Amino acid sequence: MQLLEERIRRDGKVFPGDVLKVDSFLNHQLDAELLDAAGAEIAARFEDCGVTKVLTVESSGIAIACFTARYLHCPALFAKKSKTSNIADGVWSAKAHSYTHGNDYTMVVSKEYLGENDVVLIVDDFLANGCALKALREICEKAGARIAGAGIAIEKEYQGGGNELRAEGLRIESIARIASMDAEDGIRFC
Amino acid sequence: MQLLEERIRRDGKVFPGDVLKVDSFLNHQLDAELLDAAGAEIAARFEDCGVTKVLTVESSGIAIACFTARYLHCPALFAKKSKTSNIADGVWSAKAHSYTHGNDYTMVVSKEYLGENDVVLIVDDFLANGCALKALREICEKAGARIAGAGIAIEKEYQGGGNELRAEGLRIESIARIASMDAEDGIRFC
Repeated sequence: MQLLEERIRRDGKVFPGDVLKVDSFLNHQLDAELLDAAGAEIAARFEDCGVTKVLTVESSGIAIACFTARYLHCPALFAKKSKTSNIADGVWSAKAHSYTHGNDYTMVVSKEYLGENDVVLIVDDFLANGCALKALREICEKAGARIAGAGIAIEKEYQGGGNELRAEGLRIESIARIASMDAEDGIRFC
Repeated sequence: MQLLEERIRRDGKVFPGDVLKVDSFLNHQLDAELLDAAGAEIAARFEDCGVTKVLTVESSGIAIACFTARYLHCPALFAKKSKTSNIADGVWSAKAHSYTHGNDYTMVVSKEYLGENDVVLIVDDFLANGCALKALREICEKAGARIAGAGIAIEKEYQGGGNELRAEGLRIESIARIASMDAEDGIRFC
């Protein structure tokens, strides 16, 4: 998606340690009009899939998930991050690891809102090693829901998480795919 | 806003301990079309205020803040909740207390994205005792930003937080105001 790639080129900042800072428009300050357009693009790629629910994880996935859901005329649902491993009965849960924060956490989704009649589109702002996406897939599997695929704003393709999941049969549509990046040479898209 | 009040009446669940559960449409599963309409309503009430930024706090305020921001053609910005009180240099911060989780936390916003040239509309899903709203106001004050007011989805008016802040001069527009509620008699709106 050209609009997003241009914005990443213009406002994204590459730092040592493979960090792409896009918090001026994607995950702290939110460019609502850009995210609306990104949601429209993701929705268009899955419009014939009978999606009943857009699933994401708090916090930075919520905005793009909501805009996508509005175009698909279905609800969004965000998994909550729990620090405790004591999980209540009424939730589907999966463990994940945050490389940003260096900690483990558990994602939880109420069983009331995800079940075997659902067709799920997973949406997130970033895909790098695929850890969050795997946990969201696990939650869908536990719920018996069918997964239509995943719609991602920015995939760091070179980290391999996306292609590993594609090889396992998950359809992933990333609207900006980064082939390589470094602080000197900048960002190259696929 | 009739649409929201009807939805609260239909799907909101009142539990002992003054709990209103609206997680089927507002703060876990998200009815994107309802939240879009709510965002349009809040934006309309502040359309002549020169708002440059919609400020909320993660996680459940993000959806409604984004839809509001899209109608106001400005960015949304969400404060992050930090458990530590060691706050970095580059952020505005304020302490808050969560009655839901029974803990204190610190809200932080990057100084890059909020400053003295901003006119802020604070948006949140709930207003009860006003604790989160006070912390967001404090962040705006520290940044030297002007506050146009606050747009809230559901105000528990009887808890007094909103009226206390109104008495201090803050303009608050709540699109559903609950006058009283209990498990037997249901919900009465203002």
